[in-house]
Amino acid sequence: MVGQLIVFEGIEGAGKTTQLQRAAAWLRSQVTVPVLTTREPGGTLLGQELRHLLLKVRGEDEIAPRSELLLYASDRAQHVEQYLKPNLAQGAMILCDRYTHSTLAYQGYGRQLDVGLIRQLNAIATGGLQPDLTLWFDLPPEVGLQRIQQRGEPNRLEREALAFHERVRQGYRALAAQDSERMIRLDAEAPPDELEQEIQKILQKSLGQPLS
Amino acid sequence: MVGQLIVFEGIEGAGKTTQLQRAAAWLRSQVTVPVLTTREPGGTLLGQELRHLLLKVRGEDEIAPRSELLLYASDRAQHVEQYLKPNLAQGAMILCDRYTHSTLAYQGYGRQLDVGLIRQLNAIATGGLQPDLTLWFDLPPEVGLQRIQQRGEPNRLEREALAFHERVRQGYRALAAQDSERMIRLDAEAPPDELEQEIQKILQKSLGQPLS
Repeated sequence: MVGQLIVFEGIEGAGKTTQLQRAAAWLRSQVTVPVLTTREPGGTLLGQELRHLLLKVRGEDEIAPRSELLLYASDRAQHVEQYLKPNLAQGAMILCDRYTHSTLAYQGYGRQLDVGLIRQLNAIATGGLQPDLTLWFDLPPEVGLQRIQQRGEPNRLEREALAFHERVRQGYRALAAQDSERMIRLDAEAPPDELEQEIQKILQKSLGQPLS
Repeated sequence: MVGQLIVFEGIEGAGKTTQLQRAAAWLRSQVTVPVLTTREPGGTLLGQELRHLLLKVRGEDEIAPRSELLLYASDRAQHVEQYLKPNLAQGAMILCDRYTHSTLAYQGYGRQLDVGLIRQLNAIATGGLQPDLTLWFDLPPEVGLQRIQQRGEPNRLEREALAFHERVRQGYRALAAQDSERMIRLDAEAPPDELEQEIQKILQKSLGQPLS
């Protein structure tokens, strides 16, 4: 793989999606290779259909935990095979909104499902493709939830209780501790412009050379 | 589990769906416990949405092999958790159109994907729930394909080449050889009424006592 895969992670309302767009716009002014933005779930046509199934609020048809894990893994396998690998092979820089760490943090730590099983499914889905860099937007859950309530109707995941989001945050913390070289914590309470600057510095360093 | 799970397996056009309905009608006249019929994929509300994704003919959005495996596994996990386990726990006899052997035969032998991976996903999806009995409707693929062409527009799986269906048949043969006690071969070229009688005899024996 000659390109780079940079993943944006964090709880709901952390501002990662906004910062991802800003970072992409900036990178496009700095590098000549294609700069692509994508997300999980939903980075492919099949994935958009799966994203819809995963995020809609259900009644009696609640998704069983293992079934949900397998759907996320299916979305990921399609995304890796159809989008990430071919574009990385052509040298693209890809900024991806959520990847394997989300599944570990949300399903493993948040829902307290079997972390060993999740790692097994992540390995099957990715075929071993790991991010070059993960930016973790860290934020107290109460702040994140306040932000998303201002956006309108929360989706299924957003409606989960505060305690759940606190466990998710602990999950990200544990993952960052396990992989401090490739997973960088950002203070997502910082003003957006400041955060944008910090991300530019990190990306510059990650590219291994001054870009401007 | 106090109920019984009886699975109907075979290539397209083998007549298993028709025989499943006939067997259910007969069983209902013989036993007092609930007799239920279901299928994979599509045995739950979520599963119906997944079945639609899996069987529709796609263009550029072709499903990646691992992604497909994970979708079947997700459908199965939901089916086991939401339908099979609760009904078996209440003593039901469940006749199921396709189960884990289909994934092994179609994806493992037919598409020649990693059989070890498929067994791993089957185990995750079922949580270990195995059929009490599997009826395998064996038929030369050319006969099966002729039958389904008379039904109208074939779906994605039905359009696969003859060689593919021949490998699927070999897969079923291998699975039956590995589990001759619980997987019974039926000659699906036999006249439907004859087949129906044979199935009644097998089910009677499987129930462990004369039913009538």
